[in-house]
Amino acid sequence: MDQIARLLSPASVAVIGASGDARKTSGRPIAFLRKHGFEGRLYPVNPRYEEIDGLRCYPSVDALPEVPDVAIILLGPERANQAVADLAARGCPAAIVLAGGYGETGTTGAQRQEELKAARGSMRILGPNTIGLVNLTERVTLSASGALDMDQLLPGRVAVVSQSGGILGALLSRGVAAGIGFSKLISTSNEVDLDVADFVDYLADDPTTSVIALYIEGLRDSEKFTRAARKARSAGKPVVVYKVGRSEAGAHAANSHTGALAGSDDLYSAYFKQLGVIRAETFADLLDIPFALASGRSMNGRRVAILTSTGGAGTLIADNLGMSGFETPAPGPETAEKLRNLDIGDQAVLDRNPIDLTLAGLQPELMRSAIGILLDSDDYDAVVTVVGSSGVAQPHLMADAIRDSLASSDKPVLAYISPHAPAAAQRINGSGGVAFNAPESCASALKALVMSGQGSSASAADIAPSAARVEELPSGPLDEERSKRLYAGFGITVTRELVVKSGQEAAQAASELGGHVALKVLSELIPHKSEVGGVALHLSSDTIGDRLERMRDEVGGHVGFTPESFLVQEMVTGGQELILGFHRDPQLGPALLLGMGGVTAELFQDTTLRLLPVSEEQAREMLCELKTYPLLDGFRGMPKADVDAAAKCIVAFSQMAMQLGDRLVEAEINPLLVRPAGSGVIALDGLTIIA
Amino acid sequence: MDQIARLLSPASVAVIGASGDARKTSGRPIAFLRKHGFEGRLYPVNPRYEEIDGLRCYPSVDALPEVPDVAIILLGPERANQAVADLAARGCPAAIVLAGGYGETGTTGAQRQEELKAARGSMRILGPNTIGLVNLTERVTLSASGALDMDQLLPGRVAVVSQSGGILGALLSRGVAAGIGFSKLISTSNEVDLDVADFVDYLADDPTTSVIALYIEGLRDSEKFTRAARKARSAGKPVVVYKVGRSEAGAHAANSHTGALAGSDDLYSAYFKQLGVIRAETFADLLDIPFALASGRSMNGRRVAILTSTGGAGTLIADNLGMSGFETPAPGPETAEKLRNLDIGDQAVLDRNPIDLTLAGLQPELMRSAIGILLDSDDYDAVVTVVGSSGVAQPHLMADAIRDSLASSDKPVLAYISPHAPAAAQRINGSGGVAFNAPESCASALKALVMSGQGSSASAADIAPSAARVEELPSGPLDEERSKRLYAGFGITVTRELVVKSGQEAAQAASELGGHVALKVLSELIPHKSEVGGVALHLSSDTIGDRLERMRDEVGGHVGFTPESFLVQEMVTGGQELILGFHRDPQLGPALLLGMGGVTAELFQDTTLRLLPVSEEQAREMLCELKTYPLLDGFRGMPKADVDAAAKCIVAFSQMAMQLGDRLVEAEINPLLVRPAGSGVIALDGLTIIA
Repeated sequence: MDQIARLLSPASVAVIGASGDARKTSGRPIAFLRKHGFEGRLYPVNPRYEEIDGLRCYPSVDALPEVPDVAIILLGPERANQAVADLAARGCPAAIVLAGGYGETGTTGAQRQEELKAARGSMRILGPNTIGLVNLTERVTLSASGALDMDQLLPGRVAVVSQSGGILGALLSRGVAAGIGFSKLISTSNEVDLDVADFVDYLADDPTTSVIALYIEGLRDSEKFTRAARKARSAGKPVVVYKVGRSEAGAHAANSHTGALAGSDDLYSAYFKQLGVIRAETFADLLDIPFALASGRSMNGRRVAILTSTGGAGTLIADNLGMSGFETPAPGPETAEKLRNLDIGDQAVLDRNPIDLTLAGLQPELMRSAIGILLDSDDYDAVVTVVGSSGVAQPHLMADAIRDSLASSDKPVLAYISPHAPAAAQRINGSGGVAFNAPESCASALKALVMSGQGSSASAADIAPSAARVEELPSGPLDEERSKRLYAGFGITVTRELVVKSGQEAAQAASELGGHVALKVLSELIPHKSEVGGVALHLSSDTIGDRLERMRDEVGGHVGFTPESFLVQEMVTGGQELILGFHRDPQLGPALLLGMGGVTAELFQDTTLRLLPVSEEQAREMLCELKTYPLLDGFRGMPKADVDAAAKCIVAFSQMAMQLGDRLVEAEINPLLVRPAGSGVIALDGLTIIA
Repeated sequence: MDQIARLLSPASVAVIGASGDARKTSGRPIAFLRKHGFEGRLYPVNPRYEEIDGLRCYPSVDALPEVPDVAIILLGPERANQAVADLAARGCPAAIVLAGGYGETGTTGAQRQEELKAARGSMRILGPNTIGLVNLTERVTLSASGALDMDQLLPGRVAVVSQSGGILGALLSRGVAAGIGFSKLISTSNEVDLDVADFVDYLADDPTTSVIALYIEGLRDSEKFTRAARKARSAGKPVVVYKVGRSEAGAHAANSHTGALAGSDDLYSAYFKQLGVIRAETFADLLDIPFALASGRSMNGRRVAILTSTGGAGTLIADNLGMSGFETPAPGPETAEKLRNLDIGDQAVLDRNPIDLTLAGLQPELMRSAIGILLDSDDYDAVVTVVGSSGVAQPHLMADAIRDSLASSDKPVLAYISPHAPAAAQRINGSGGVAFNAPESCASALKALVMSGQGSSASAADIAPSAARVEELPSGPLDEERSKRLYAGFGITVTRELVVKSGQEAAQAASELGGHVALKVLSELIPHKSEVGGVALHLSSDTIGDRLERMRDEVGGHVGFTPESFLVQEMVTGGQELILGFHRDPQLGPALLLGMGGVTAELFQDTTLRLLPVSEEQAREMLCELKTYPLLDGFRGMPKADVDAAAKCIVAFSQMAMQLGDRLVEAEINPLLVRPAGSGVIALDGLTIIA
């Protein structure tokens, strides 16, 4: 931790490979550090210079007069590795490696990255292939990003950690243009050592940061990230993430259906949700949502007042908010009366929402009063104001009115800037307001403010492991009967069934099971029974014997060997079918997938995911997240299904997977029949693979 | 037409109620006209001035030295109406009324608007409550929009027609900031006379316009709009529309299911699709898509090369394109070879896509060559280039490379600007390229370029009316039997069935129909039979008599009268159920709704809409648009359904609706059973209401 603190807030910096030419990448860091007012000690290192910009330049790391807190290395990859070794030998706490040509460029680069890892010893490394970091509150610009060409840094409460250097520069320059400031920006890139999670962990304690924004391509260590995200949450700091890789095909090679249904990116969404991390849907949201959250305001309801002086843009906002599930009710009688008392003129529309002040909205006092009335009103949970063309010539108008209204309320106040009026946006953002140029941003920011207002429903599932003992399990696939016996050990109700080898035994078994049964071929080598003619339903003790012989022939013809065993199973009907499966993601680890059964639901990919372990509360959330949940909840006069039992079954399945740990490769109940309320659930089929 | 031409390109303009104070709304139009170089004759009218800004000012309309081509009226509503009457009396061709306080503000305003309509005589009116219009190519700024404070107009090929004045100003100022020019911008607002369709019609002929962008809240005359949009299409001018009202509840009071399922905004989407009008999904798209289309380039495939010098932003673009169904394949061997021959250095990534030139991309000659190679390659249908941080300091770099590459190819070239670099965007947009600041915009623009490349598949359905004679129909609801007899007259197969009054007749009917039948209560007063116990399935001639008596009692208990008639119907099973309904939208007119049957599909609102008439090609499109279409197409081993017969049935239903015209209030087949291929479709139930 101390090393990361010194990396981000160094008292002394060595710039290895510094150039005296500020136009070159290797000349930029010193130029930026001085331009933006770095107050610590600065040591250029380059044998070809005596001094750079009035600073004494040292020929080598060994020649440095002290061990610097951090070194930024501007050399090419081979020489960078040597510099890392030299710095590590001197006991330098941290270094930033800008060079590319490592893991991102094939086998030579990957080898180079391994060498870098070996060279660092216990020194912490940011990079390689990074653009560096910027600490705006302390004016530490350890970066070559062209975005630092800007005249002045704009400190703020949002920290950014990005796995891409270019994106860091893009956010920095876009932020300044919008009047949005940052506390720190860090590009982790190849993450040979320090990764996104390390910085989330650090920023959770950083007093200058109140919101953490992340740009990620994938997580290298999800357990570490989980801990860091929970820490940020405990510290009351929202984490907002934009993740690429959404368009990658989610298909995995697997025997179970679950593998094909569990998309890697969908699992990231589930993971973020479980952690209370907000996922930004558009790139603009990655700037807009954190900035809105940094206002410290949250929204405790869904009713929004829209205050405008230009009708069209008000309608545009109302429409976008409506699409996101917000309500824009007309002012109640008391609020309307107060607005009328402002004496705005007869063209104003005060009894509808958007509340249109028309040109009267250009009088600062009137606008201030109107915002105050709406914030004060019990009719609304947030106010969105609209800046019209007047914002171009009078950028202060709305900014001042918002600033003066904020103290009296803790409800969110957003502004939508209808024309191109960057000065108005900067001014509003700089005086406590939150201004956006896209109507869609208003909606997504308010959604995030509602989420942060709700706090965490999905607390960490700290679940005591089940007491059930896992008996000795063979490696490889388990047949249906063996699978269900395993599940039953964890409290999951399964069909009553008997294993038989002949028609005669089958007839006997059918009688014992009540005379109305199903017959299935039983072999761990035949996972997809119905595809080879290995399932027959609605049989009796009279019919089952012949049917078994026919099935033996048919299945044998398909699979190339004569099956020996069959399962006689009670016929269970009546209820709604689900699929419940275990899935192991290479990055995020073990997870459960829940889906509605039936071909139509399958076409709509009506599934939901959670990382393990899953608590009963989370299991209920999963059920409710299914778009077809109404099928379990009495839709169109259907009987209500036993949702309680379904949730308990999901938890039991999660417990089983936790207990089996790495030995569990695949597991799936398909279908899981959810019977009417009070009648429980029952696993009709099962498929398991043990490592 | 001539009047609209003079409105948009006047040789002389009267400004009624002009003020000498350029800060006032009433002072702006003259100030803007002079500032932006209007070359025609300009007549201020105001009895309180002798001259304004060196122009002679006239005391009244009557005192004007000539009849102006257009008058812009800046008076309040009452006096504006008088001015309109005076101008009409002098034979002025067109006037623009800026005043609000008309139809948008309650009953007094609505009355005022009627008076305005009466006052205009044959003079054309733009407004009232409009911000006016701007003709950029001829420097005619008949508007008070604060957006015209800009230093210089930027002419371009995109025309804008907006039902909101504020939105017009927003688009104008946002366009200038992005370097996007316009031909004309017109705000129609209250549309007391001239509406959006009038201007689409005009712009279809306007040689300065190549793309038409519309911002609408609703259409007042959809038939006129249909004609105008078809005319624009014939002229090869894409129409792009952003429509608000997407969040309005779509529920209509109706007896049929169709009414509840047919959302008004969904119908607008269907309507635009039928017309080949592109619907912008975000407000930013309304600027971005038309500008991309105005490049005159279209995309004949879905393969995109991404050329970047900054890895992260390239990935961001690739991810967004992937989400929109585009492919980003790696360069083929020949293209890769050509790229390697550029001798870019070993850190560049040339055999993958995004193609990353790294810092070498900052050499203009190299970037130009790389774009040229990619445009020239058969591997790609479009190129997206990424401008990194270098774009801030060197805005010309990418702009010049793109400009020099365009002549050799007609494929689209887009640029994504990763940092805040408005000068780079302006420069690219001004030199033949198309630059965007949002990765999502690149994807939506390319989608539009693909659409414009494909041309019209949905040509106007010019369908000969059916020969079937509509027999005399009573007014009011028709019962099931009568409804299906009507449908059968148009060639739709319906269930065989007999009307009975007693259990004995029912037994006889069951025998005649083959012994396996359904029984339904038959009354035009009972549209929802199953809800009152009026449907029984799987009966035989033995069981039907008793069942009828029980049904008579049960239904009677529910509806409060004893039903007299019953329908004995052949039982038809096996197939996939659809719902096919007629719906009349108050704005857009008669339409058909097609939906998949079953509760799951209902939960997903799996429906599609078309305005009438519907051709067989369109009917097939409707079927394919159902997300559950695979259920008709052999999904998971199901038999393929008779899609041909379903399409013919949709057309027949459309023909019926066309022939019944205004007399048809509601009509619905629910369910329509689609049987396996070759076996046709059959209407199992029907509900009709005749006016």
